[in-house]
Amino acid sequence: MQLTFIQVLELLGIFAFAISGATAAINKSYDVIGLLALAFITSVGGGTIRDLLTGATPVAWITDERSNIAIIIAAIITALFFSYVKKLNRWLNTFDAIGLGLFTITGINKGVAGGFPMPVCLLLGVITGTFGGLLRDVITGEHPILFTREIYAVASIAGGVLYLIGIHTNIPRDIILSVTVAVIVTIRLLSLRYNWQFPRLKA
Amino acid sequence: MQLTFIQVLELLGIFAFAISGATAAINKSYDVIGLLALAFITSVGGGTIRDLLTGATPVAWITDERSNIAIIIAAIITALFFSYVKKLNRWLNTFDAIGLGLFTITGINKGVAGGFPMPVCLLLGVITGTFGGLLRDVITGEHPILFTREIYAVASIAGGVLYLIGIHTNIPRDIILSVTVAVIVTIRLLSLRYNWQFPRLKA
Amino acid sequence: MQLTFIQVLELLGIFAFAISGATAAINKSYDVIGLLALAFITSVGGGTIRDLLTGATPVAWITDERSNIAIIIAAIITALFFSYVKKLNRWLNTFDAIGLGLFTITGINKGVAGGFPMPVCLLLGVITGTFGGLLRDVITGEHPILFTREIYAVASIAGGVLYLIGIHTNIPRDIILSVTVAVIVTIRLLSLRYNWQFPRLKA
Repeated sequence: MQLTFIQVLELLGIFAFAISGATAAINKSYDVIGLLALAFITSVGGGTIRDLLTGATPVAWITDERSNIAIIIAAIITALFFSYVKKLNRWLNTFDAIGLGLFTITGINKGVAGGFPMPVCLLLGVITGTFGGLLRDVITGEHPILFTREIYAVASIAGGVLYLIGIHTNIPRDIILSVTVAVIVTIRLLSLRYNWQFPRLKA
Repeated sequence: MQLTFIQVLELLGIFAFAISGATAAINKSYDVIGLLALAFITSVGGGTIRDLLTGATPVAWITDERSNIAIIIAAIITALFFSYVKKLNRWLNTFDAIGLGLFTITGINKGVAGGFPMPVCLLLGVITGTFGGLLRDVITGEHPILFTREIYAVASIAGGVLYLIGIHTNIPRDIILSVTVAVIVTIRLLSLRYNWQFPRLKA
Repeated sequence: MQLTFIQVLELLGIFAFAISGATAAINKSYDVIGLLALAFITSVGGGTIRDLLTGATPVAWITDERSNIAIIIAAIITALFFSYVKKLNRWLNTFDAIGLGLFTITGINKGVAGGFPMPVCLLLGVITGTFGGLLRDVITGEHPILFTREIYAVASIAGGVLYLIGIHTNIPRDIILSVTVAVIVTIRLLSLRYNWQFPRLKA
């Protein structure tokens, strides 16, 4: 089995989102069931909501062995090496940003393939990239990070707009995809590095 | 573009539900992403759950430009004029009650068109009218208003039963619709005016 | 109308899950709407999520009069005789365990009928048996029991594996089904009796 570069990146993204869910489960003192469930929900939740909204069922991940195994491995590694995983924060953020970038593009591509208008494609991309984390936060009773602190959806939106413009030019798809992911990862990691925060709305 | 009276009322309902979501986002100090997301979820959440349960996908709102623009405008207005919006509470409640009435009827009509039995049509109407607010409350971690305090679902049920009886008579549909919305709005606003509360169940 | 033994057990399971939801509603001082809604969501939530994921819509329960009536009766009984219901804890746990067993098998059967691979069938069985309770806990803002304390999903998984092995042998389906439910109920009730707890993950 020969994986393409994109497939390797996608597995890294799935892996990183699964670690994020598993980490949240451990922080809440969940058991092994909670560990696996939250790793799955965080990793496939965004794509699942996209597929439900557009009627693309059965949802794809349910029979995707490779990604399911990646999620289970991520959960086990997180449980066994939790103290190390926490120290790898910078690597995790990088994987997570790659996941955000690739999930955004996957979502947009599904929207384009489904013949939806451009703003809907963008919305499907952002939902794919971010709603797994929203489910994770709602289930664990945390304030949704998506809504309250970090430059997250904005990176996805910026990259998504770029991608949607790009695929209507003659530039080769691979280049557009690479540039988009690079833009999303860069915005996301710079925002973490320099602690950029979206203004909160004050009551 | 010429809007019918019903379409104007529906846009007002969507608008009012969106303001309700946006207000909740500001009360929780969410950012702009949270503002928009919660406005959308509150406004289209009930109809989305109805469409998912009945398999009517892709869900309708996803390509409904007019309602999406109404939601975005409602969110922006709420953010810019929050202190004024709060003072307009009576107007907001009226819009929200109109939204409840019209969403109830929209849900019932979809059920009838789908050939579902009458109690299921009523259930779909109530879900359409109320589950957007339920999602808003679950996401923000609040006690669901739907379950705990106000005469809300009951107004929707009362109007829905009336509507289901009415459409099996010879009375013109427009009259039935107007009377139903008037009944739902009246019950809802009287309950707020005189502080009628549903009895809570005591443990 | 003549009910088979399995149908009687299924109604008992639906009934028990509905009581569990109704009890949670009363513990939260919800009103009658909350009582009915939480009884329904707890009872049909797992099967609904399974059907949404696999695209089996409209979801089955929506037109299943018999189960809907069972849920409403369960909710009313719980509200009227709450102090007695609480004392019937052991009976409730038995019904609930039967429900878990039968819902697990129902979910697996739907997966097998849909031609899904075995691990997916198992997952659909566990989701059918457990996600109604997860929804109940997320809506009421409680820590999900599914993730934090009890031997619950594990009983479903153990029985599910046994069932999946069994249906690939020559043993009559009725015997396999009875043994599976007995195993799930036994594991569940023994874990309650002897206070077996899954290890929590420590941060």
